[in-house]
Amino acid sequence: MSKFYVELKKVVDDSYDIEVGRNLFDTLVKDLKGELGKGISKYAIITDSNVKALYGDQLYQRLTNEGFQVDLISFPAGEKSKVRATKEMLEDEMLAKGHRRDSCIIAIGGGVVTDLAGFVAGTFGRGIPFINYSTTILGSADASVGGKTAVDTPLATNLIGLIYQPKKVYIDLATWETLPKEQISNGLAETIKHACIADYAFFEFLEANIEKLLEPDGIHQYAEICEHIAEKNCKIKYEVVKKDERETNLRQVLNLGHTIGRAIETLSDYSLLHGEAVAIGLAMQVKIGEKLRYINPEEVNRVICLLEKAGLPTKLLDNMSTEEVVQKLYTDKKVRKGKIRFVFQEGIGKIKQYEDGNYAIALEEDFIRKTINEVR
Amino acid sequence: MSKFYVELKKVVDDSYDIEVGRNLFDTLVKDLKGELGKGISKYAIITDSNVKALYGDQLYQRLTNEGFQVDLISFPAGEKSKVRATKEMLEDEMLAKGHRRDSCIIAIGGGVVTDLAGFVAGTFGRGIPFINYSTTILGSADASVGGKTAVDTPLATNLIGLIYQPKKVYIDLATWETLPKEQISNGLAETIKHACIADYAFFEFLEANIEKLLEPDGIHQYAEICEHIAEKNCKIKYEVVKKDERETNLRQVLNLGHTIGRAIETLSDYSLLHGEAVAIGLAMQVKIGEKLRYINPEEVNRVICLLEKAGLPTKLLDNMSTEEVVQKLYTDKKVRKGKIRFVFQEGIGKIKQYEDGNYAIALEEDFIRKTINEVR
Repeated sequence: MSKFYVELKKVVDDSYDIEVGRNLFDTLVKDLKGELGKGISKYAIITDSNVKALYGDQLYQRLTNEGFQVDLISFPAGEKSKVRATKEMLEDEMLAKGHRRDSCIIAIGGGVVTDLAGFVAGTFGRGIPFINYSTTILGSADASVGGKTAVDTPLATNLIGLIYQPKKVYIDLATWETLPKEQISNGLAETIKHACIADYAFFEFLEANIEKLLEPDGIHQYAEICEHIAEKNCKIKYEVVKKDERETNLRQVLNLGHTIGRAIETLSDYSLLHGEAVAIGLAMQVKIGEKLRYINPEEVNRVICLLEKAGLPTKLLDNMSTEEVVQKLYTDKKVRKGKIRFVFQEGIGKIKQYEDGNYAIALEEDFIRKTINEVR
Repeated sequence: MSKFYVELKKVVDDSYDIEVGRNLFDTLVKDLKGELGKGISKYAIITDSNVKALYGDQLYQRLTNEGFQVDLISFPAGEKSKVRATKEMLEDEMLAKGHRRDSCIIAIGGGVVTDLAGFVAGTFGRGIPFINYSTTILGSADASVGGKTAVDTPLATNLIGLIYQPKKVYIDLATWETLPKEQISNGLAETIKHACIADYAFFEFLEANIEKLLEPDGIHQYAEICEHIAEKNCKIKYEVVKKDERETNLRQVLNLGHTIGRAIETLSDYSLLHGEAVAIGLAMQVKIGEKLRYINPEEVNRVICLLEKAGLPTKLLDNMSTEEVVQKLYTDKKVRKGKIRFVFQEGIGKIKQYEDGNYAIALEEDFIRKTINEVR
């Protein structure tokens, strides 16, 4: 018997830039002609059917005109496309079009596009570079920092995927102007979550300004509010992720509102948008947190009011039984040793940390069931 | 417009041990009760239908008896199972059986099992630990070092996958005794490749000893030859991989014989075993290399004789046209800017390096076609 030690220790640098601004195709082209495009023979633009018509075709034309080798591949818009079958289709299309390891993926769209395209990039040829061009508020808040990519399966959301970092992220605030109102609200849920987790002043800023974005032409008129939101989202998320990329503990704070949120998003069969489900999850979380004395009634009220100002739901849907919600909680990725675990805010702008150093706490099923029944 | 820099620089330690010996279940159990099993709530043993009957069920029983939470999941044996549909099935089974991020995969079997199970582990919950218990000569030569995991698609072999390192590898030489003769030959092709790349003395050792392993009861009788082969395979591959994990250049030397080998493996619809296809690829490579004056006729002859001694084929199958082989070469992962690239040995025990530092050279399609036609 003998032993052989395989030493594989190395320094990895996955750092990248996020560019926040309006109409960033020029910047992208300049970047691709410089360092960012070095060694790349061919680009695959991945987008969904909605964004294709709005910006994907434009980007394809622009890059083709600039002399790049480009293909554009799209899939039907919506969370229901975030599945393994779509990933396969994208891979097969890329292979059929001759993409190999010297290709680069440009994902243009919201969180579904960047989650899916990032996952494709991470496993295509065992990893090719990808660039994330974000066109939604949700994408800017959720998918621009952290490197999480994933698909949903019938049994769980986001459980099959990778941590895979983009080479660069563009947040194009001008594209937010074409978002339907419900998608503006959808994007603001994660923004409110970030304020609840880490930044009381930002929470106050949102209380004062969030309604303006829902006015007709509000996104265009209040460009500086949009920019502030985009920057704050990146900063707050980055402060968490840089300390715990693999979500061993601290990164779980970003799961605020997501334990129940993810469960009801799946239960609704994605008729609830992600942000809507998270909003309900955030509301449930403050109400359960109130029972545990982590937050006082006035603060609970402020969180719920802010969600409502953003046009978001705050109550469990009538057609969902407490029991099916509770059962679905067991598919949450935070489940350990069969126990459902929750993250809570402590007042506003801070997360509850427990004496053992953990940010997630296991709660008994009976307590969860009883409390959801009381506050739903 | 503003810029935000996401700094993500870190030291990653993916080091692990390879244990080479006979009947290693005891060692595995000891390891799982120690450091290796720390933080793991549940194990999923992944294997194929052949190995399940031989060793998988045994391992399941043993771990269950030792008090571990274990599930065993298997799929039909053969390269044809190394596809995305099998990966999905394994993921769904694991999810249905309640596996989450605190699970660990134990892959027991040959290269198909470890390639597939490693890929599942790399994307399940965005990466859970996996342990590789290798039961074949091919697995010990190919899959124990390097961290390559992958599936095949209709358009290309091994192009969808990850570099994902196991936590520990066990090479159980006793399991080689149950290999059918063709699987012994199959495993020896990569062994011969390693000798051709890097070790003239090992090549001579194989010339003197390789036939013994194909004698009835040869594996049992010549245990020390098996151990020497297993160790040499790990060492030679490791020396390459530690310098170039991501295959930017040096690691391409491990592709010796694989440019044509992979193409004809796919063309044969996997009726050729991987090692058989690689053996033909190795033979073609020395013959083409002879034309390019990288190797002399006597050395060519020694390589071909050694492959034959190992019971391996060295000629293109009659039913494959040169043209379809040439066309299939374009799906090779080394293709850059539409050019087919080859790796060649220089004499025996050394790889050809070009003046620009590269180990792979682009050859014109016409030259390839003409030469294959001459030497096939």
